Amino acid sequence: MVRLTIRVDFDGKDGFGPGKARLLELVAEKGSIRRAAAAMEMSYRQAWLLLAAVEKTFGAPVIMTATGGTRGGGARLTELGEAVLRRYRTMERNAQQANSGEIGAFAKIVDTNPARKSGVRRAPKPLPRARGT
Amino acid sequence: MVRLTIRVDFDGKDGFGPGKARLLELVAEKGSIRRAAAAMEMSYRQAWLLLAAVEKTFGAPVIMTATGGTRGGGARLTELGEAVLRRYRTMERNAQQANSGEIGAFAKIVDTNPARKSGVRRAPKPLPRARGT
Repeated sequence: MVRLTIRVDFDGKDGFGPGKARLLELVAEKGSIRRAAAAMEMSYRQAWLLLAAVEKTFGAPVIMTATGGTRGGGARLTELGEAVLRRYRTMERNAQQANSGEIGAFAKIVDTNPARKSGVRRAPKPLPRARGT
Repeated sequence: MVRLTIRVDFDGKDGFGPGKARLLELVAEKGSIRRAAAAMEMSYRQAWLLLAAVEKTFGAPVIMTATGGTRGGGARLTELGEAVLRRYRTMERNAQQANSGEIGAFAKIVDTNPARKSGVRRAPKPLPRARGT
């Protein structure tokens, strides 16, 4: 399956792509940073650092956490977090729709690769270790 | 400046994104894997591994090298390499055009971030180190 994803880069310094989008989505879905991190097979610390990076990019919190209560707290997206995620998914959908033909053409090149078709990943004839080229 | 880039993923195993595209472009431009690698501030080995990965994805060489001659060899794109690069750039352009409004909206959120405006990257109020959330 061929899939097109997008990444938005800001001044070439920081960016927002599929990983951060998925993390925000999972926090919203699971109501917990820890469970979102587990679903992405990353540590709580990694998830926390990614969320802190998103906050730094957009200048305000994208997640809010509650403490206490019967459920012992929980996390959800702020309005900004929701807006960032929604806009990203819209852009991704627009990009995919604008490229449906091209994605098919790319898929065709890859699908005619016998190494992929058989499920065995034969390496093609290797690049020569060219001298100075 | 906000910039949208794309990545094409195949079966979630391998992919083709801005780095590999730029490398192919530089090989074509400089006529040399070594000079292309230098322009991307990567080692010859790193560039070689990236090109080998692209070949593995598409099942055929994307680069051809010449040996001997007055210029001591050189590298250029195969027809497949050119097609992959051209299609990628078309998809990128389509994605950007389909999202001009959304890119502007994203840029607006980031531009109103005072930490970015001043050039000083103040960290926003950090996420709480929530217990179990």
